Amino acid sequence: MSQFPQYEEPKASKLPLITLVSRVVTLASLVVSVVILKTNNIKSGGYRTFTYKEIYSYKYAMFAMVIGFAYTLSQIPFAVYYLKTGKRLINHHKLLQCDFYGDKLLSYLLATAIGAAFGVTADLKKTSDSIEKLDNYFQIAYISVAFLLVGFLSSVVSSIASSFAISKRS
Amino acid sequence: MSQFPQYEEPKASKLPLITLVSRVVTLASLVVSVVILKTNNIKSGGYRTFTYKEIYSYKYAMFAMVIGFAYTLSQIPFAVYYLKTGKRLINHHKLLQCDFYGDKLLSYLLATAIGAAFGVTADLKKTSDSIEKLDNYFQIAYISVAFLLVGFLSSVVSSIASSFAISKRS
Repeated sequence: MSQFPQYEEPKASKLPLITLVSRVVTLASLVVSVVILKTNNIKSGGYRTFTYKEIYSYKYAMFAMVIGFAYTLSQIPFAVYYLKTGKRLINHHKLLQCDFYGDKLLSYLLATAIGAAFGVTADLKKTSDSIEKLDNYFQIAYISVAFLLVGFLSSVVSSIASSFAISKRS
Repeated sequence: MSQFPQYEEPKASKLPLITLVSRVVTLASLVVSVVILKTNNIKSGGYRTFTYKEIYSYKYAMFAMVIGFAYTLSQIPFAVYYLKTGKRLINHHKLLQCDFYGDKLLSYLLATAIGAAFGVTADLKKTSDSIEKLDNYFQIAYISVAFLLVGFLSSVVSSIASSFAISKRS
């Protein structure tokens, strides 16, 4: 894959790579985070199973991550094309602006999701330190939040890359 | 893309006004939100007073808002100068980049704060609907979050304005 961009102007050639890598990292982190959050549960005899659905903040984080996954997946083909050819598949100013605002929106959505998931984990874990099963549940929830954090940071990189794409174009 | 490379100035003149207004709105909203969160408490005879300090997510939101207030306040003089003269006080590319990253960072910080404060309010309110005093406490917390939301949105406007400032400059 690395042979292709050599034909392009060498200076600009980092942007396509950064774009693709950040999208792939976002995608992978969100998948891992969703899987951990979804499979994490407490089974106890008397009560029904305790899952992320019991907590609004986790439900919101799940919603944000699914949206983030779908959006990022839809951007991957464009990022691959950009890397292979060094050109945008659709090099239209309005569409670059869509990318710019879409990436911004996604990274803010993930930022609020991190705040919600991390905050509620910290506060609920505090009140349940004495209950081993719950404490363990929130410990695993922290791991999910950690992957969400990685996904968020790489979405910020995408967002910065797409704002450079706009300023290069204009 | 524009056929007529005519005078840039009249078009560009909205940017200083948008910059100043968004900074002032951010500042005002954060002040209101902080005051509401700080003065909201439950006094009860037997127990000690319940304040935002009992909840990690609120403490984090408070931290983020104080940082946001200080940063935004420090930017106001520059925004006023920009509006009055139509020029940047310091028109240096590296410093415009500082603005760009600073504004981005602030808006992400406020986004995580909203997630945390809103999420924990929703989840804790659910468990305390039957306790009138706590329910009332969280009702007021929602108002604080609403102002934080306004502050966040206007910080996003500042952030977009400063990314246009970079692309205009380069």
